[in-house]
Amino acid sequence: MNVLIVYAHEEPKSFNGAMRDTAVRVLRETGHTVEVSDLYVMRFNPVGGKHDFTTLTDPDYFKYGVEQTKASEAKTFAADVAAEQEKLLRADLLIFQFPLWWFGLPAIMKGWVDRVFAVGLTYGGGRWYSNGVFKRKRAMVSLTTGGGPTIYSPTGLNGEMDSLLFPIQHGMFYFLGFDVLPPFVAWSVARSSQEQREEYLRAYAERLRNWRTSETIHFPSLEEYDETMQLKS
Amino acid sequence: MNVLIVYAHEEPKSFNGAMRDTAVRVLRETGHTVEVSDLYVMRFNPVGGKHDFTTLTDPDYFKYGVEQTKASEAKTFAADVAAEQEKLLRADLLIFQFPLWWFGLPAIMKGWVDRVFAVGLTYGGGRWYSNGVFKRKRAMVSLTTGGGPTIYSPTGLNGEMDSLLFPIQHGMFYFLGFDVLPPFVAWSVARSSQEQREEYLRAYAERLRNWRTSETIHFPSLEEYDETMQLKS
Repeated sequence: MNVLIVYAHEEPKSFNGAMRDTAVRVLRETGHTVEVSDLYVMRFNPVGGKHDFTTLTDPDYFKYGVEQTKASEAKTFAADVAAEQEKLLRADLLIFQFPLWWFGLPAIMKGWVDRVFAVGLTYGGGRWYSNGVFKRKRAMVSLTTGGGPTIYSPTGLNGEMDSLLFPIQHGMFYFLGFDVLPPFVAWSVARSSQEQREEYLRAYAERLRNWRTSETIHFPSLEEYDETMQLKS
Repeated sequence: MNVLIVYAHEEPKSFNGAMRDTAVRVLRETGHTVEVSDLYVMRFNPVGGKHDFTTLTDPDYFKYGVEQTKASEAKTFAADVAAEQEKLLRADLLIFQFPLWWFGLPAIMKGWVDRVFAVGLTYGGGRWYSNGVFKRKRAMVSLTTGGGPTIYSPTGLNGEMDSLLFPIQHGMFYFLGFDVLPPFVAWSVARSSQEQREEYLRAYAERLRNWRTSETIHFPSLEEYDETMQLKS
């Protein structure tokens, strides 16, 4: 199977770097083909806009969705966007590896989503959520935090981690149809002991050995919503 | 009072542009000084990293928080970051004007937060949430969506808007100490009539005439959490 790791950290010696290296090693050992989009090394431009396209339908009034739809048909995405879309389309497992910044993705990774997850190519026309283009494929986040798990508990000061990850896990991955594996969180690594860090890497490796069979997060399917997109009671 | 509008849309004729223009006009009419950071026009670089600093404490091992802390003391932020920090520090009201992309900020605005909201200068050492640097100042989001309000209701397919905005309203604004005004949402503007759009602009203008006295969103204060950062029951 093909795995795409999208990786956002500028320091190769960081713990995020160690997690990426662990994932590449374990996934290759277990027979998978692994690609890494190392966004800082690639100097990936995260700003979505006119430069995403080799031609514009309407140069005088820029509407991002209209241009993405057109580019999906005409194959007129700029080379940097098209290259990432090809990686995404061939991935059976998608992993986002990042440090949690401001309770979400670092901008360089948020912009990878803004530009690569184009309407037309990756969703649209009823192809979303449980009917999404990527259904039966899997995705997960693997992240590091500054704070420990208690501050991210349901009654914690920073808010519950599952809620903070909802825009990513539900709004990005499940929106495209992916089955979503539970997040792997390395809590407060800067204040962790060497033993704790090694334990995180062992646990992450174990998680990745079982990614094809692990239970995924339950999100309701489209059939559980009525015609106004409300969950049926 | 000073107002800073951080604005992220590439098309000046967009509805986001009309909302920005409405805000600038109304706030000036009511006696305020308004600055706009027009991120696309500024070609703002949203990628947080080594280039945020004129010197590095440790060029061989990049730790973003360490470098931000040092730069806050030594005033060694790069010019583009320092200019935005000055605008932020003098703002009595901060407004984010943006189209909701993937249930959050467009990358160009997420990166404005990543780079400008630096530890040391804007938080740290017990200065956060109700004890934050920006307490008694106000902040709000003003956004456009693709979907209508029902798909963002508590039982809606996309998830509840308040939950989706939590990482911004609580995790960014309140984290720095801001009192947070309710969000202004222009729903599904691409499919709205001219009358509906004009009504949105009228309602937004009215909201902005009352920003100093309007009720803000209730978030618990630090005193309501115990020493492990759990809400006291």
